[in-house]
Amino acid sequence: MSGPVSDDLLHEVLAANLVIPREGLATLTWGNVSGVDRDRGVYVIKPSGVPYDELALEHLVPVEVETGRVLAGDLKPSTDSETHRLLYLEHAGLGGVAHTHSMYAVSFAQAGLPVPMLGTTHADTFNGPVPITRTLTAEECGRDYELNTGRVLVEAMGADALGVPGALVAGHGPFTWGATAAEAVEHSVILEAVAEMAMRTLTLNPAASSPDHLFARHFTRKHGPDAYYGNPDRTLSSPS
Amino acid sequence: MSGPVSDDLLHEVLAANLVIPREGLATLTWGNVSGVDRDRGVYVIKPSGVPYDELALEHLVPVEVETGRVLAGDLKPSTDSETHRLLYLEHAGLGGVAHTHSMYAVSFAQAGLPVPMLGTTHADTFNGPVPITRTLTAEECGRDYELNTGRVLVEAMGADALGVPGALVAGHGPFTWGATAAEAVEHSVILEAVAEMAMRTLTLNPAASSPDHLFARHFTRKHGPDAYYGNPDRTLSSPS
Amino acid sequence: MSGPVSDDLLHEVLAANLVIPREGLATLTWGNVSGVDRDRGVYVIKPSGVPYDELALEHLVPVEVETGRVLAGDLKPSTDSETHRLLYLEHAGLGGVAHTHSMYAVSFAQAGLPVPMLGTTHADTFNGPVPITRTLTAEECGRDYELNTGRVLVEAMGADALGVPGALVAGHGPFTWGATAAEAVEHSVILEAVAEMAMRTLTLNPAASSPDHLFARHFTRKHGPDAYYGNPDRTLSSPS
Amino acid sequence: MSGPVSDDLLHEVLAANLVIPREGLATLTWGNVSGVDRDRGVYVIKPSGVPYDELALEHLVPVEVETGRVLAGDLKPSTDSETHRLLYLEHAGLGGVAHTHSMYAVSFAQAGLPVPMLGTTHADTFNGPVPITRTLTAEECGRDYELNTGRVLVEAMGADALGVPGALVAGHGPFTWGATAAEAVEHSVILEAVAEMAMRTLTLNPAASSPDHLFARHFTRKHGPDAYYGNPDRTLSSPS
Repeated sequence: MSGPVSDDLLHEVLAANLVIPREGLATLTWGNVSGVDRDRGVYVIKPSGVPYDELALEHLVPVEVETGRVLAGDLKPSTDSETHRLLYLEHAGLGGVAHTHSMYAVSFAQAGLPVPMLGTTHADTFNGPVPITRTLTAEECGRDYELNTGRVLVEAMGADALGVPGALVAGHGPFTWGATAAEAVEHSVILEAVAEMAMRTLTLNPAASSPDHLFARHFTRKHGPDAYYGNPDRTLSSPS
Repeated sequence: MSGPVSDDLLHEVLAANLVIPREGLATLTWGNVSGVDRDRGVYVIKPSGVPYDELALEHLVPVEVETGRVLAGDLKPSTDSETHRLLYLEHAGLGGVAHTHSMYAVSFAQAGLPVPMLGTTHADTFNGPVPITRTLTAEECGRDYELNTGRVLVEAMGADALGVPGALVAGHGPFTWGATAAEAVEHSVILEAVAEMAMRTLTLNPAASSPDHLFARHFTRKHGPDAYYGNPDRTLSSPS
Repeated sequence: MSGPVSDDLLHEVLAANLVIPREGLATLTWGNVSGVDRDRGVYVIKPSGVPYDELALEHLVPVEVETGRVLAGDLKPSTDSETHRLLYLEHAGLGGVAHTHSMYAVSFAQAGLPVPMLGTTHADTFNGPVPITRTLTAEECGRDYELNTGRVLVEAMGADALGVPGALVAGHGPFTWGATAAEAVEHSVILEAVAEMAMRTLTLNPAASSPDHLFARHFTRKHGPDAYYGNPDRTLSSPS
Repeated sequence: MSGPVSDDLLHEVLAANLVIPREGLATLTWGNVSGVDRDRGVYVIKPSGVPYDELALEHLVPVEVETGRVLAGDLKPSTDSETHRLLYLEHAGLGGVAHTHSMYAVSFAQAGLPVPMLGTTHADTFNGPVPITRTLTAEECGRDYELNTGRVLVEAMGADALGVPGALVAGHGPFTWGATAAEAVEHSVILEAVAEMAMRTLTLNPAASSPDHLFARHFTRKHGPDAYYGNPDRTLSSPS
């Protein structure tokens, strides 16, 4: 392809979007994944309102990171596209971004609460609680709403974006990210699982907690220089 | 077809009814969708007690809006048919009506509570809480029960029926509606999702709330003159 | 077939047993359905411990109602067979019995609570709360345990066994029944749905209730001389 | 096969691992099952990080029980392999071990609570509450973490490992075991079901309980010299 992005990126972003319905992370068309080509300064994202079972390579929308300009095709990108763009602009390490309306992550977002780190399943991927943004002001909702959503996400993110690769937008829902689009949506899958585990744990014991040394062990056995999880050429993350 | 309604309407109503089992909104044969042809003054509805996996075009029952008279065939319409009819009579803007016994919407109905607006997923489709009717009196249950169910729904509905396209019948379950039968049942799908989100949110934080300016932004980006969600010839609703 | 029961009954009982895994009412091999031929005084029941995906007509075990004697084959009947037998002996109107370990009905049974009548979905099938037995004594557990389980079910059942076609065994799980094996297992499906609805309703509002006149209307529109639900040759039960 | 274990064991361990995704016990690649050949002193376990839908016989990793040495192939065993190994070393009766991150068992583990024995479904398989380990110290997490996880499991297990064939690691999740790999993973399926039942039971009635004589009856009708559940050549466990 001689278009604005490579075929490989298009295929990866299509596959990453199709993880959303397959893993039960969305109702109807809710949710979207993007992936970026840093060399060309272009990201590719799901178009707005297209059902997953009709989604095809040619529907994906290439957008210029610097300007938000759509570079090809006649479909509009997801309405959340500007939120993705802001994240790419502010965190050079991100290769993919995912947004869903998955049940348990949304419920924490609506409750105005971070997802607490209550077990090793969480610590295997998220090196701390999954933070929640402040609520947007009326002014921030009135103008450049989606860009401002990205800005409050950046405020809520720590400096190490890949150490805790996700955050909740208060009253809205989760965004996750990763080195690639595939990793971004895998983090959505994991966030939903650990959010559900956290909710059920709190139902059993509102004071549940485990020590940081247990969590640190799990995060470092999968990430960083001492990692020993996985086999070469196999999926990156997930316990066991 | 030279029958009382067009083939197109029959196909649309059949497809809309089949959304109910596919989306997990009903146990057994519970639930029904209708669609109306305003020019002919006729609506078409699921017959009573027919399993979804046997439901075919020729089973659908055409009913005269003005009188409730069945216009063709030898099957009885859904026992809820008179409720659908009252809604068509009272709100000229409705093109389709859906009724289900979906788990979370029924639970709010049984609890006697409206579905509160706690997040943007809700606000994308419902421009306010989903209201609940008063309980029917013994007299209203004793005579014209299904028609009276429609009447308390009309009491509970605001003037802008398409702004909040659904309501709960106290002790019973949800009814939703829309410009078409397809949209009506899509609103049932969304109501169930946001009812579940609301229940789980309240479990985490009984005092959960988000500001109206956030919700208004979401409703208006999908509805009305300033809407910018979706692409032409794509599904109407849903976040992303 | 010239065996102790008709082929029709065998086919019906096999089909009714296969409803259990299809509707998600059991883990592994848990659950069993039987159907009775009153003229011959024989019921047919699932064998003990056979997985559903291997279950075939020739595995079904015919048992004499009066004595509990196995009339053919070399497989043992379900360990719960004596409970089924006691119900057939004590209630001549029963044509089928079903037992499952479905999640929500079991949870009420373990909690020691009847399933309260909180909505019309319940009232469409169960004309009152689904009762729970007393706990069996050590003596009743020590000898003829399964027969004694049937006895406490009979104690808990009202005189109108088909008016409330199910009950919970305290600390164990649900039994349901009906005029046929098909109807018995359909009542298990409905009991599980209304138990889940009841649990979620109580989570939202522990004081939830609706008036008896609403419930009576729903039960009588589907049962008895004034019923007007359904179409001839269609499934018997279920709302809408 | 002339390798370190028999083909039969490889097939059994592969099949047991595939139960995990089929029964919904894990997200992504989380979870692993092993089976042991006591005569050869070798167990076979899932490799680390391989997705279930790619898992094949040749990926399984044979490990020497005594030393933890990998005997063939170029894939690393599950990071939890040393935990499995410790259990095989300490309990000669174990033929298989399974570990999952299933939702409800993990939630009890994160809550720091054993799974209480609240009904006969539990008592059919687990002859008492499913215990929970103490939390590992910083030292135990810092060195030989997975082996120490096995050690705290052994501390929590009673002498009769097959009487209560599972335990929770605090803050982490469940391990189960059995006479074979197939039985080990079946116990994971059952543990998840009874953990969910226990959680829902406690939601309805935090003081729920049933007498020991009921539970004893259920355990002994399936296990030990007086067992009368099941048919020859059929699956071993599960109620009814």
